[in-house]
Formats: sequence, structure tokens, C-alpha cells
Amino acid sequence: MLKPKSQKAKQKKSRLFKYALLPVLTFIILLCISHATNAQTAPAASYKVADNTQWVMLTGCLVFFMNSGFAMLESGFCRSANAITVLAKNLIVFAIATLAFWLLGFGLMFGDGSEFIGTNGFLLQGYDNSPAIANDYQGVFDSLSWAAIPLSAKFFFQLTFAGTAATIVSGAVAERIKFAAFMIFSFFLVLSYSITGHWIWGGGFLYTLGFRDFAGSTVVHSVGGWAALMGTVLLRPRLGKYRKFNPDEKRSWRRTSFYGKKIVAVPGHNLSAATLGCFILWLGWYGFNAGSTLTAHPEAIAHIVIATLIAGAMGALGATFWSWQFYEKPSLSFMINGILAGCVSITAACAFVNIPSAAFIGFLGGALVVYAAVILDKCEIDDPVGAIPVHLVCGIWGTLAVGLFSQDPSTYAWAKDFFTQESSLKGGLFFGGGTNLLFAQLVGILLVSEFTVIFSAIAWIGISYFMYLTSSTSGSRFKVFKSLRVLPQEEVIGLDSLFAEGSDIQQLKREYIETQKQKRYWQRKRNLGK
Amino acid sequence: MLKPKSQKAKQKKSRLFKYALLPVLTFIILLCISHATNAQTAPAASYKVADNTQWVMLTGCLVFFMNSGFAMLESGFCRSANAITVLAKNLIVFAIATLAFWLLGFGLMFGDGSEFIGTNGFLLQGYDNSPAIANDYQGVFDSLSWAAIPLSAKFFFQLTFAGTAATIVSGAVAERIKFAAFMIFSFFLVLSYSITGHWIWGGGFLYTLGFRDFAGSTVVHSVGGWAALMGTVLLRPRLGKYRKFNPDEKRSWRRTSFYGKKIVAVPGHNLSAATLGCFILWLGWYGFNAGSTLTAHPEAIAHIVIATLIAGAMGALGATFWSWQFYEKPSLSFMINGILAGCVSITAACAFVNIPSAAFIGFLGGALVVYAAVILDKCEIDDPVGAIPVHLVCGIWGTLAVGLFSQDPSTYAWAKDFFTQESSLKGGLFFGGGTNLLFAQLVGILLVSEFTVIFSAIAWIGISYFMYLTSSTSGSRFKVFKSLRVLPQEEVIGLDSLFAEGSDIQQLKREYIETQKQKRYWQRKRNLGK
Amino acid sequence: MLKPKSQKAKQKKSRLFKYALLPVLTFIILLCISHATNAQTAPAASYKVADNTQWVMLTGCLVFFMNSGFAMLESGFCRSANAITVLAKNLIVFAIATLAFWLLGFGLMFGDGSEFIGTNGFLLQGYDNSPAIANDYQGVFDSLSWAAIPLSAKFFFQLTFAGTAATIVSGAVAERIKFAAFMIFSFFLVLSYSITGHWIWGGGFLYTLGFRDFAGSTVVHSVGGWAALMGTVLLRPRLGKYRKFNPDEKRSWRRTSFYGKKIVAVPGHNLSAATLGCFILWLGWYGFNAGSTLTAHPEAIAHIVIATLIAGAMGALGATFWSWQFYEKPSLSFMINGILAGCVSITAACAFVNIPSAAFIGFLGGALVVYAAVILDKCEIDDPVGAIPVHLVCGIWGTLAVGLFSQDPSTYAWAKDFFTQESSLKGGLFFGGGTNLLFAQLVGILLVSEFTVIFSAIAWIGISYFMYLTSSTSGSRFKVFKSLRVLPQEEVIGLDSLFAEGSDIQQLKREYIETQKQKRYWQRKRNLGK
Repeated sequence: MLKPKSQKAKQKKSRLFKYALLPVLTFIILLCISHATNAQTAPAASYKVADNTQWVMLTGCLVFFMNSGFAMLESGFCRSANAITVLAKNLIVFAIATLAFWLLGFGLMFGDGSEFIGTNGFLLQGYDNSPAIANDYQGVFDSLSWAAIPLSAKFFFQLTFAGTAATIVSGAVAERIKFAAFMIFSFFLVLSYSITGHWIWGGGFLYTLGFRDFAGSTVVHSVGGWAALMGTVLLRPRLGKYRKFNPDEKRSWRRTSFYGKKIVAVPGHNLSAATLGCFILWLGWYGFNAGSTLTAHPEAIAHIVIATLIAGAMGALGATFWSWQFYEKPSLSFMINGILAGCVSITAACAFVNIPSAAFIGFLGGALVVYAAVILDKCEIDDPVGAIPVHLVCGIWGTLAVGLFSQDPSTYAWAKDFFTQESSLKGGLFFGGGTNLLFAQLVGILLVSEFTVIFSAIAWIGISYFMYLTSSTSGSRFKVFKSLRVLPQEEVIGLDSLFAEGSDIQQLKREYIETQKQKRYWQRKRNLGK
Repeated sequence: MLKPKSQKAKQKKSRLFKYALLPVLTFIILLCISHATNAQTAPAASYKVADNTQWVMLTGCLVFFMNSGFAMLESGFCRSANAITVLAKNLIVFAIATLAFWLLGFGLMFGDGSEFIGTNGFLLQGYDNSPAIANDYQGVFDSLSWAAIPLSAKFFFQLTFAGTAATIVSGAVAERIKFAAFMIFSFFLVLSYSITGHWIWGGGFLYTLGFRDFAGSTVVHSVGGWAALMGTVLLRPRLGKYRKFNPDEKRSWRRTSFYGKKIVAVPGHNLSAATLGCFILWLGWYGFNAGSTLTAHPEAIAHIVIATLIAGAMGALGATFWSWQFYEKPSLSFMINGILAGCVSITAACAFVNIPSAAFIGFLGGALVVYAAVILDKCEIDDPVGAIPVHLVCGIWGTLAVGLFSQDPSTYAWAKDFFTQESSLKGGLFFGGGTNLLFAQLVGILLVSEFTVIFSAIAWIGISYFMYLTSSTSGSRFKVFKSLRVLPQEEVIGLDSLFAEGSDIQQLKREYIETQKQKRYWQRKRNLGK
Repeated sequence: MLKPKSQKAKQKKSRLFKYALLPVLTFIILLCISHATNAQTAPAASYKVADNTQWVMLTGCLVFFMNSGFAMLESGFCRSANAITVLAKNLIVFAIATLAFWLLGFGLMFGDGSEFIGTNGFLLQGYDNSPAIANDYQGVFDSLSWAAIPLSAKFFFQLTFAGTAATIVSGAVAERIKFAAFMIFSFFLVLSYSITGHWIWGGGFLYTLGFRDFAGSTVVHSVGGWAALMGTVLLRPRLGKYRKFNPDEKRSWRRTSFYGKKIVAVPGHNLSAATLGCFILWLGWYGFNAGSTLTAHPEAIAHIVIATLIAGAMGALGATFWSWQFYEKPSLSFMINGILAGCVSITAACAFVNIPSAAFIGFLGGALVVYAAVILDKCEIDDPVGAIPVHLVCGIWGTLAVGLFSQDPSTYAWAKDFFTQESSLKGGLFFGGGTNLLFAQLVGILLVSEFTVIFSAIAWIGISYFMYLTSSTSGSRFKVFKSLRVLPQEEVIGLDSLFAEGSDIQQLKREYIETQKQKRYWQRKRNLGK
């Protein structure tokens, strides 16, 4: 896609021909697929199906909208000279996740196959056996067949989840990663997400083991968090984030890393956008959690939404309290991340716990996010937007909370209604269910994290090597690992200089002088005309 | 929470222990409550219940999202040096309102009790007797039992309303109030809101009297408006908002207050955010008004939404026209506030009036907001975002409009369907219903405003005294009333300097120089390496 | 509305009286209409109706929210000195469209009448004969009677579409048009939109001919695009957008217009807002396309949403690829416009094509938007936000795509369910349907474009002449056509100087100095007090 610029002049004509091939080829391939696609004929839908589908589509829209929340949050927390890059990453990551999940991910995650991976249903080919939709043919999405909605609705809802997982990474690696490297990683992350997702939601071995994650504290958030952590560690901190103390500088305990360096605060450039992003994410979380029922069960969806709301609110209060303690000033950033922490924490347990438990889970999530952020910073792991404390730390806490606070399934009427599969769930440690569930949660957390860490390490390193080979600066003395990262000059100027918009800054200055000249000319002409 | 800074060094270790108590205590308290909570078992839900619940949850989401609209509107209309504070207030106010309404407010407002106050159902304990949900036990939320949706859905919808009422205040007191004072007031306002709300929506004496407020022109908006007015008056104007004329200055009639001072215009720093906020609020209002049916009645919800839409649009046109007349220029601020004015005006009457009446109600709301803003400014009541003209003045106008424009209930089929309680409503003055309804509206406006004014005056004064006692500057010559307000130096620099983000401005400058040094060092090293 | 300022002093008292007439007159007129309005009594709604109405209302809300997306997108792509004007245009255009569509448009578009224009149902007077709503009286909206939802819901949904069409123009004419001229044109555009809409969706001759446009690639987008093109051509480019090359300047092929001028890039001032706008629009499009079913058919809505999502994602990838080729850098603007291009392209065909076809349609839309933008710029047609490439070019491509990629109606179960009228549709050229449909699409595109071009040319010229007559500068040497446009001085300073907010810039500077003085005075007083 990116060619060495020196050969361009000669290739102009051949290039035109070559590039015209892309849509033609796309066309031919897609046309072939089109004709192969089996149309899904189904009996007339009942009202129950119509109701459920509406619910899933509208909550899916809320989850989709979370991407704009992430874009606002992440770009707001970054410096203005990198904002365009962050925004572009958040836009393109959803497009790439869409492509990856349509081509491969949905099949890997929900397609029939082994307990470890799905091997059917790629490119959305094949049926599912939803009750009340169609029962007369062989489906390939057994793990989703319990939900009485069309397959397309299930695909839409799950696709928005995959997009969310992919977008978590972009904040943590912001302000230094190469745009193309991030694009490629997003594609692979969707595959990794789909495989571990299969273990839990696709009828895999973790589900069989008793691991429960209602809406994705582990499936979505901690997976995104682990991938972000690997990227952040491999990329190393932004320039100037951790620096040596000057000899005469006062050393504050709060601002000194474990390696004795000064932690430099890099405040975001647009907290207005970040706050809006937080509200959009909180709103989207109602869809995220309550839509995961895939069924418009009145009691269930109302319970889940208020659990999410109260966990978010308590997360805000917790993070405000603890950050106020620590920094002796209130902090808007921690209010925002506290709300997200509360929401991530309740994601796994939202349908299984009662409201006071949800309040505590959220409150502790808010406390965790503050101290996790402080400790990460002291470890010199540079996460510009706090994605790792929010998604990884609270994702793990939320998954454990299922093992601690779950009610017995008989407590909630809806458990019998639509969680027929959930009959093995006996409640958490604090509500008389013993340690079985907690143990399953621990095993799940470990296995998913191991897989994701290894997979994303391989992916990041592979991409480094690819960038090293294809980069125009590959001949220089830069090492392979540095190829993930933009050049230091670019980082200091701001990554937006690598974008068509950003590159016009110098141009614009010159143009402005021109406009001023034109204006003077024009005014002179007018004065003459009078 | 805020401790004198001098004692810190000694307390470091004991503090760690002390603060760790908070989550532990929270945990124990909530765990006890958790076990006390009666699980609400209910028979399988019918489709009607599923339909209604979906509608209420999704419109509740729209109302929830209004909080981001308020955040954008208020921060956009403020100066940039106070923006972080305004955003933080808008985030935390919803968290506090959630806590207050869950603990106390919902019980005070809808719990069974006297005609003046609810005394049951705190902490969401207890059942309600919704038709089609459960009829076999004793409920404690009789005033809500007519709606065929789960109690949690009712709670969610009402909670978002309480959050909205609380957030109205934040704009009017912006740019000068102490953050902690505002946080405490928000808690009390939710209680006040719940008590007056009980009179009207909780089966209280105003409802019995015939007072009607469909979606809250009085219950939500004028209550928030009165509390904002009291706060604004007690806080006094921002520094520099009203100043003496210079001897040689031209005095414009428009820009002179009734006390002969110059009215200084303080334009907002981000009208882009304010416009977005306006659209979000307008969108949210469809949920606010149409969700108040608590029933997905097709005719009713469609009618209410187009009434709200047309009132908002006519409010925009009215405010544009009148502000264009007054200032001889169009004004975006007044377009925005005109839309909100139209929406507030139609809130009480949206289900009772026909579309042309809604158009007029909105149009006059748009005119009122312009002149109310002008008069308030001339009275030297400093409301940075126009919350009082929009919510208080148009809230009163909207409540009166019910008495003037209501149709006879037999006109609309839905009145019979779900407003069985509304049988006493005989239509407004202009549609043959006589003055009974208008009289009830007047009585309701007076009583609610009296209660709110007295309650919030007491609350503001009490908080002043509390801040006076706890503030580190309490030993100085400042009076009790000034304790609500930040120090003048802080106000001039901008309230954001009191936030962790804002305080880094000086720090950042120093860090930037450091980064530059590092960059030069790095480049030198690279050049040597070549 | 805008009066010469010289006469003001004398008229102050008479003006007060005169202006008070407006609300009184409005009141009397609307009261008369109010009493004439026939209340629509209907039998109790079935669950099917309740379901469908919920769906249409909520998707209508999403479409309504698209207006905020347009506001953010257009203001973000403009320069900051014109941002308030663009925001104000986007707010007021929806208010005007609401008024125009309520008074006239809905009747012109969907009212019974001839095959060319509707002549009934103005001011929302009259009934429709929806199945399951009411069958016992004579309706006047036959073209909408197939949808089993209340008339108000249909009106709401269609109104949001009319608002969308009107708002497309505002971006293309931004940064130079007079505010009042744009307001008037918006009113007329809604009428033009309603007339051509009648031909296709109102039971007109194009529908009879076999022309199909599911959700409005032609009805909404290309109509808005043609009106925008006419406005852009008549207004001529912004000052400084195309300028002579300096003698010693390097000429780049990319940056040279067909007339040999230098194309000056004018980057937007707030790509954060533009990105948010893009996400809001993409979200709104799910409502736009899937709500156009007017029926919550599970299979149909899920299919349409994923077609829209995948077309948008492929549009983003296509535009990113092609703009990266062309400019040798990625471009956020083209990612944004690529998503919109994909969505516009799939709008007409979303219910008729399978997912791989949708992917190709979106991908080619993304490529088209890049090259259309380049060619328009080379033609010196100055479209600040890219509205013409997105809405006009992709609107035409999307309409043609119906003729190429449509499946046979029997493929999709829902076609039989609710598209009983669609029985003549035999599929597109590539799926065995022959050229009939493609031919009908071509005829429709030609006729609609001809009408819109002529109508909007007349409207623009009429408004020019009106502005020429009423403008205070009409006595000068400016020609009629220039009257659409602000004065060059105003354009150079920025159009925001014409707004009440913007005009305070100088004022603010003076006030700020005053505040500084007050601050010093205050500090001195405090120091004395110590």
C-alpha cells in the first residue's frame, strides 16, 4: 500500500491500471460469494421474536455508538498534536473489525467446531436453529441457537462487541504507534478475541467448566486490556513521559517511579470530548450488558440496567474519593475512568448479583482504577488514557466478583426463563454457593490471559518485523522493535503530521499569507471602483 | 474528605489504615442489605409487559443521555478556564443523584405514605402491584402500580428524571461555586425534588386537587429552576459580570442593568459543544415526554413525540425572531435556549394538547426565554447558561398551558386506555373546560415553588455554614455566605486550577521545556551515532 | 425581519406594539386550526402495532439525531471563524423543515392527489387507513396506509427525513452564504423534496414505472446533493480557495485545477467534532435504513442494519485506500466521508441486496467519493465539507446499484411480508433480473435531478433577488447574484462576526481589560483590608 516514493514517476500509468484492478477484483470475488450465499428463508416471525429482535438491534446500536465514546475519550485524553491520529485509529479500527469479524471472527467464535475453536459459519454462511425462527434444517451456530432472534441480529450484536474489544487497544498505544501497524494488529486482535470468546460464549470448554461471564468483563475487556498491555510494554513509554530528576528538583513520592524517574503528567487536550465520551460509553453499557440477554425479558433487562447504572455511579464516587485522597484535589479524569471502571466491573456479574452487591462491585472498581493507574505509572508502563487500569484490572475484578457475589439462579425469575444452560450456576462465595464458581472464574481468567498475552505478543512482534521489512527507513540502524513506533521526530512534532490534514500546517501558513495578499488586492480594486 | 494540609506528613501511615476502612465498611453494610433484599419473583411476563418495558428502558436511556447534553451545553456556555469544573459537576451530580434517589428519593417520591411524603420503599425494598406482573402480595408503591412494567424499570426511568432535575442547578451556579458545596447540595435537591414530586406523581394532595403535569414542567424543571435561582442569588454574580460604567462610556439601553451598571457579555468558549448538547437534549426530550407514558401506547407516544418536536422547533423560531429583534443580530445561544424553552414548555402538556396548541406553546416559550433572560440580566441575577429562563420561566408557562390548552380527555383514545386516573381532567380554558384546571395549576405552581424555595434556601445556607466551618480559610475575615464561593483569585484564574488536571498548567510548562531539552539531547546522540 | 438601522430610533414605541402582534396573531391562527383539527379516534392498538410504532419512533429518533451529526461534521470541517454560523444553520434548518413539512410538505409528499403531487393532508389534517388502526373512514394518505402504525408516527419518521435532506445543503454552501438566504432556501427545498418524494414514495408515477429507492439514495440524498450543487455553483468559491500560481511556485498535478489555478487546501478546525458527527451519522443511518421498513420485521431490520454497517465499513476502507494512494498519506477527512459514502450508497438498495453485494457497493462508494472530490475541486466547485461527492455522487451510484445487485424478491421472506407493492421487482442485472429495473432507475435519476436542478435554480435566483431588494447594501454596485453572499470583508473576518456571539469579540477584548482593572482594584482593596 505504501510504496517507496522514488519509483513513482515512472509508474504513473501502470499504476493507474494496477489500482483499477482492486475494485474489479473485489467485485468479482464478492459477486461469486453473493451467488453462493444461501438465502435464509424463515417462517413468519412471532411477536416474541419481533420484540427480542428490536431489543437486540437497538442495544446493538448503543454498543456501536460506544465506538464514538472511545474516540472522544481517547482523543480527549491525548495531546492535540496526536488527536487526528487517535480519531482516525478509532474510525478505521471499527471498519477493520467489521471486515475481520464478518470474514472469520463470527465463525471462529460461534460457529460449530471443537471446544477450542469454531470452524463453521465464516462469511456468515449457514443457518442457526433459533426456536421460533426455523427448525427444519441443520444449523452451524449451535451456541447461539437458544436466542429467538434472526441470525443477522445476533451477528450485528456480536460484531459491535468485537469492535469494542479492538478499540480498547488504541488508547493505550496512542501517541507513538505507527498507523499501519495498529491497523494490522486490530485485524489479528479480532481473531484472538473470537477464539477466547469461543471458549466462553461459543460453547467452549471454559463454559463447560462452569466459568461465567455475562456480558464480557473477561471476554471483551480483559482481552482488550491484555493486548493493550503487551502493546504498551513493547512500544515503551512516550518520549518525555519518564525522565531523570534534575539535581535540584524536589522529589515528590507521588511523582517518582519505582526506577527513580520523574513521572511527567501529560494532561489531555480536550476534557470536554472526554466527558462526552464517558457519557456515551455509560449509555452504551446499558446496551452492552442488557442487550447480552439477546431477549427482551422485562425483569432481566431492567435489573441489568440499574445494576450497571449504580455500579457506574458508585465507581465515579469511589474513584473521586480515592483520587481526591491521593492527589488532594478532585480529578475529572479519574471521575471519568471511575465510571468506566464501575461499568467494566459489573459487566460479568450484572445479571447474577443484586443491586447492593452491584454498588459495592462498582465502588471497589473505582478504587482499583485509581491505585492501578498509580502503580502502572510507577512501573513506567505508559498508558495515555488509562485503558489498562479500566479494562484489564477491573475486567479481572469483575470476573472474580461473579464468583463472590452471584445469587443462586433460583433467586431471579429470568434465570429460569432464558438461562436454561445456566443451571449449574450455584451462586457465589458470599451467597452460599461455595468456592466452585470462584475457582472456575480463576481458571478462566488465567487461561484467557495466557492465550491473549502469547497471541498478542506474537502478533506485535510479527507486525514489528513486517514494518521493519517494508518501512522506507528499514535500511537504517533502527532495530526491529522500534519499527512499531513512529520516528522520534514525528513523535515530538505530533503524529498528526503524518496525516493529510496535519501535513498542511506549513502549507496553511503560506496560504494564509496569500489570502491576505488577495484580500488587500481585492480591497484596493474595490476602492478604485468607488 | 478535605483535610488541612499541614498535618499530612505525620499521618501517612495511620491514614492508609483509616482509608482502607471505607471499602471494608461499605462492603459490610452493603452485604447486610444484600441479604435483606427480597428477591422479586414474578410470573412469566406477557408481551405487553415486554413491549412496555422495552419502551421505558430505551426512553430512560435517552433521558439518561440528556445528562451529557447538559454537560456539553453548560461547559460550552462557560469560559474555558472553568470548563473542567463544569464537566466534573455534571458527571458527579448524576452519581450523587443516583445514590440519593436509590437510598431515599424513590421511597420519598413513590413509596406509600401520606399525601405529603412517601415513607416506604427506601433502598428499592418492597414490591409493587403492577397489573400483569404480580398481584398476590402487598406492594408499597401504589402510585406506580398502574404501569405494567417491572419495578426496576420504573426505578430506572424515575432515577434519570431525578438526575436531570439535579443537573439543572449546575449551570446557573457555574464559574464560582465550590465543588464540594455543589456536591452536597445535589444530594439535598434530590430529596426536595422527591418530596414535591410525591405531591404530584406519587399520589399526593396536588394530584387529588386536579393539578396535572404530564412529564414534569413543574415536577422537574421549575423545581430545578427555583433551586438554581436561590443558589444564583445567594452566590451573587461572577466577578466582572456587572460593573460601573466608565465616565466616557456610551450607555446602551440593552446593556444597562436596573441598578445602572454595565452588563458585560461573557460568551461561551465552545458553542460547538453547546449545539451538540442542545441536540442531545432535544433527542432526550422525546424520551422524557413520551417515556412518561410508562406504556408503549402507539397513538400516545407518537402524538407526544411530534408535540415535543414541533414545540422545540417553534421555540427555536420564536427565540430566533425575538432575539434578532432585540439584538439586531441572530444569536446561536438563543436558538439553543429557544429549543430547550419550547421543550420545557410542552413538557407538562404534551399528552393533553393538540399539535397546533403545542406549536403555540413552544413559540411563546421561545419568546419568553429571550425576555426572561434580558430581565434577569437587568436584575443583576447572573445565570451563565440561562438555566433560569429556560427551566423556571418556561416550566411555569408550560404548567399554566395545561390549564389553557388541554383537550377534553375523551378526545384522545389513549386517555381512556392508560390514564384511568385522569378522569377528572375536563380540558383547559380555551377548549371548553372552564377555569378549574387552570386554578389547580396555579395552586400547584405556588405550593411547589414555595416549598422548593424554602427548602433550597435552608440547604444553601446550611451548606454555607458547613463550608465555613470546614474550610481551611475559615479563620479569615470571609463571611459565612462567601464560603459557598471559591476565592476571588481562584475565580479570576479559573476554577479549573482547583482540579488535578488544571493544576498542571505551570507544571506542564516546565515539563515542556524539559522535553525540549531531552529532544535536543536525543538528536545530538543520534547525530553522533551516524 | 431585518430593517434598515437608521429608522430605529423613531420607531421604538410603535415597534413594541407591532411586534407584540406576532404571538397574538400566531395564537389566533393556531387556535382556529386547533379547533378544526379532527381528533383521530382509533380502536385499541394490537401488539403488532405497538411493536411497529416503537420501532419507527426509536429509529426516527436516530434519524433526528443525525442532525447533530451533520452539525458536528459540517462545523468541524469548516474554519473556526465560521463555526457558529454553520452550527446555527444546522439548528434552524431543522426548525424550518419541521414547519414546512408540517404545513405543506407531508401533504405534498404522501397526501392523495395526482401521480405528480399530493393535494391533501396539509397541516396533518385527515386520516389514513392503516390496517389494524382504523378502517371505517375515508383516509387521505393512501400511499402510507400499508404501514400498521399511527399516522403521527409516520409523520414523525418522514419529518426527520425531510430535515435530513434540508441539512445536506448547509455544508456545501458554508462559509459564504447569508444566513437569511439559507433559511428561506431551506423552506423551499423541503417543498421540492416533498414533490419529488411523492413521485417515488407517495404513490407517484416513478414508483408505477418500477423505480425503487428503499430508504432514499435518490429521494433524500441526491435531491439534497443537487440543491447543494446549484447553490455552490451560484455562490462561487470561497475567497482564496482557488488562486493564481505565483511565478516561482512549484505546480503539483494534484493541486492544480482544470483552469490552471492553485487549489488551496482549507482544513477543518475541529476534526474531533467531525469524527463524532460521522459516528452519529453512521448510527443514525441504521435508523434511516432499517426504520424505512415502518415495520419491526425481525429478519428485515437485522439484514438492513448489517448491510448498512458493512457498506459503511467498506466505504471507510475504500476511501482510506484510494486517498492514501492519491495523497500518499492517510486522511481522516476521507475516512469520515468514506463511511458516509458507503452509507449513502447502500441506502437505496439495503433491503434488496445480499451482504457481499452491500460490501462491494460500499467499497466502490468509498472510491467514488475520493475521485469525485478531486474532480470537483479541479472544476473549481468549492464544497467545504464534501457534501456533493457524498450525497450526490454516491446517491446516484446507490440508486443505480439497485438496478444491478437486487435479489429476486422471493429470496427474502420479508419481501412477501410487507412489500406487497413490490411484486413487480424482478431483481437486478447481475442477479438475473435483466435490465428493466436498471432502466427504471436511470429514468428516475434523470427526472428527479432535472426537477430538483430547475426548482432549486429558480429558488436560489428568486432568493438572490429578494435579498438584493431587502438588503441594506442593495443600493451599491453589487449585482443580484452577489446578494446571496456575505460581503467579502465579512467573509475574510469570518461569518461569525454577523452573530450576536461573534460580534462580541472586540467587545470582549475591551471587557477583559476592564476585568483586569477590576481585579487589580479588588486586590488592592483586599490588601488594604489586611
